[in-house]
Amino acid sequence: MSKSFHPPRRLLMGPGPSNVSQRVLDATARPTIGHLDPEFGAFMEDLKGLLQWVFRTENRLTLPVSGPGTAGMEACLANLIEPGTKILVCRNGAFGQRMVAMAERMGAEAVAIDDEWGRAVDVEKVEAALQAHPDADLLAFVHAETSTGAWSDAESLARLAREHGCLSLMDCVTSLGGIPVEIDAWGVDAAWAGTQKCLSCPPGLSPVTLSERAAQRIGERKTPVQSWFMDFGLVMSYWGGEGGRSYHHTAPVNALYGLHESLLVLQGEGLESAWQRHRDNHQALADVLAQLDLEFLVPEGERLPQLNSVRLPEGVDDAAVRGELLESHGIEIGAGLGPLAGKVWRIGLMGETCRVESIDRLNTALGQALGID
Amino acid sequence: MSKSFHPPRRLLMGPGPSNVSQRVLDATARPTIGHLDPEFGAFMEDLKGLLQWVFRTENRLTLPVSGPGTAGMEACLANLIEPGTKILVCRNGAFGQRMVAMAERMGAEAVAIDDEWGRAVDVEKVEAALQAHPDADLLAFVHAETSTGAWSDAESLARLAREHGCLSLMDCVTSLGGIPVEIDAWGVDAAWAGTQKCLSCPPGLSPVTLSERAAQRIGERKTPVQSWFMDFGLVMSYWGGEGGRSYHHTAPVNALYGLHESLLVLQGEGLESAWQRHRDNHQALADVLAQLDLEFLVPEGERLPQLNSVRLPEGVDDAAVRGELLESHGIEIGAGLGPLAGKVWRIGLMGETCRVESIDRLNTALGQALGID
Repeated sequence: MSKSFHPPRRLLMGPGPSNVSQRVLDATARPTIGHLDPEFGAFMEDLKGLLQWVFRTENRLTLPVSGPGTAGMEACLANLIEPGTKILVCRNGAFGQRMVAMAERMGAEAVAIDDEWGRAVDVEKVEAALQAHPDADLLAFVHAETSTGAWSDAESLARLAREHGCLSLMDCVTSLGGIPVEIDAWGVDAAWAGTQKCLSCPPGLSPVTLSERAAQRIGERKTPVQSWFMDFGLVMSYWGGEGGRSYHHTAPVNALYGLHESLLVLQGEGLESAWQRHRDNHQALADVLAQLDLEFLVPEGERLPQLNSVRLPEGVDDAAVRGELLESHGIEIGAGLGPLAGKVWRIGLMGETCRVESIDRLNTALGQALGID
Repeated sequence: MSKSFHPPRRLLMGPGPSNVSQRVLDATARPTIGHLDPEFGAFMEDLKGLLQWVFRTENRLTLPVSGPGTAGMEACLANLIEPGTKILVCRNGAFGQRMVAMAERMGAEAVAIDDEWGRAVDVEKVEAALQAHPDADLLAFVHAETSTGAWSDAESLARLAREHGCLSLMDCVTSLGGIPVEIDAWGVDAAWAGTQKCLSCPPGLSPVTLSERAAQRIGERKTPVQSWFMDFGLVMSYWGGEGGRSYHHTAPVNALYGLHESLLVLQGEGLESAWQRHRDNHQALADVLAQLDLEFLVPEGERLPQLNSVRLPEGVDDAAVRGELLESHGIEIGAGLGPLAGKVWRIGLMGETCRVESIDRLNTALGQALGID
């Protein structure tokens, strides 16, 4: 007979999930009500307003997709891609590669613009690609590459897309709430985020936002969106709210309570204050890592404050060190992905995790595990 | 400035979500841990075992899809459909229609076998369709039609599919945990459920299970699954557990805690006892409805115990009565969908809601709202 699961207490310093506050956890445990209850409808409107606030947008089409960040990514791509759509994808890590794979399955002509894993997207290379492909419809990029910790210049990329007649698609899963994300000021046309990074909410939802230009493009489609579940036209019959809500799928009621509460926490702190906190603690972590003789993968100026990839020191056993951190200190850090497996650790400082105390605990634990103290 | 949301207390007697026990809510609020944490890996194995138990199957490919029941439906269809696949779909309500719409978007040749909304699937009609379409690959049906309350003979439908060389796909969103579901004994090849019906968990996950025949069919595909997010081959690299787990998407950790706990509750009661409770309380509800002069939509012998559609009495204002139940009594019942809008109410007796006290409260409230007491 199985038993109730009582998870261990962890300090989550990997690439996500980050630690979730008791306040947000408690919100998810409030009584479930119906997804068509009028009080839930009012709550949904409030949640949409909070999402517009955190995305810095007035986009009408702003809502949480009922699935993890990967579902938000696929939903944005699926709504904007028809067979034959030409999409340029900036690929400087695992998530750029994921977009290429998704777009190809949708029948798009996907052109990858490659940069080294660990580097920001090269804006000049993107400009050249846009010039070389004047028939491109879409430009997609990852703002904060979770697989490497590279921070790309989203503002320039969105501007270039617009100048070349492309819609811009931005993965801001790991950036939202940790570094500036300015949907309207940058003119981004479609963006998706995650809840379990700098918003410090349990994983499972993906806030998305689409511009009027993107909404218009979807309205002009000649073929239906390949996914009925992800079709924003249908989803908006529930989330749109104009002229009543009609059932599309059952919203994940309790998870939405948690997202709402996490946005209130962020609103209480202030978005700019949260960005500053991520910057400050990144600097404190960088000092600690320097003392431990750990080198950053990403060059200065391209580093995300909230996700820090460091190279494994010579002769160190990757799994053994991560295992010791987890078992002896209750600290999770992330392994490398793909070509970086066994070569880097990914140290997250996201949302609730982004505190001086986290850095202190990691300093002690990593010092012991590496035999430095 | 927005405020924390404190949902009202409701007695959820609609078509789902049903009421969630404090025990399950508390489980969802346990600390979030990493989706690659070894302790989470052990938890996942335990959860898979519980899902196999509730589905009555030994299928290796049994896991919770990270999205609501609609995502589970689409995932099963997407993995088994390639362009040109011929699928027969039993359509006796909204969810049969949903499968037709999804299959068509996937490039399948979908043939609907129609029955009246409110009736079970006509097994003889299905046999005739299978004979008329010897080139069909798949047969899909809804075990418990949430839009009407009709109970179809899944065992016979799965047998017919097998006899005619088709894989069988079963929607058991509203049946699992409330009435017998026997994946292995019936030889069902793909099935998906929901968490927010008879399992009494918050909405947002979809337990699915696929037979070895289905897994083999997926392995023989000539084209990739249209959805990267829903591709079971990729999802199983995380949920499969053999040779370690590799990251596909971030699992909805806390929601999974809740599902696990809800299955423990069910295991404590016993599956047969839960079925009996649903049968018994259905009879008690039927007596109350008869006293209130409310007639069932579905003929006797085809009625689900857990979802009871009744015709609106002549001259009664649909929205006004449902509004009064909700506002004055805190009771949610469901409206009709599609052609049944304004014509029926859907009264759920699922999972935690399925108690004598629920029926008593509804009796009083509905009597008052209809001016009968």
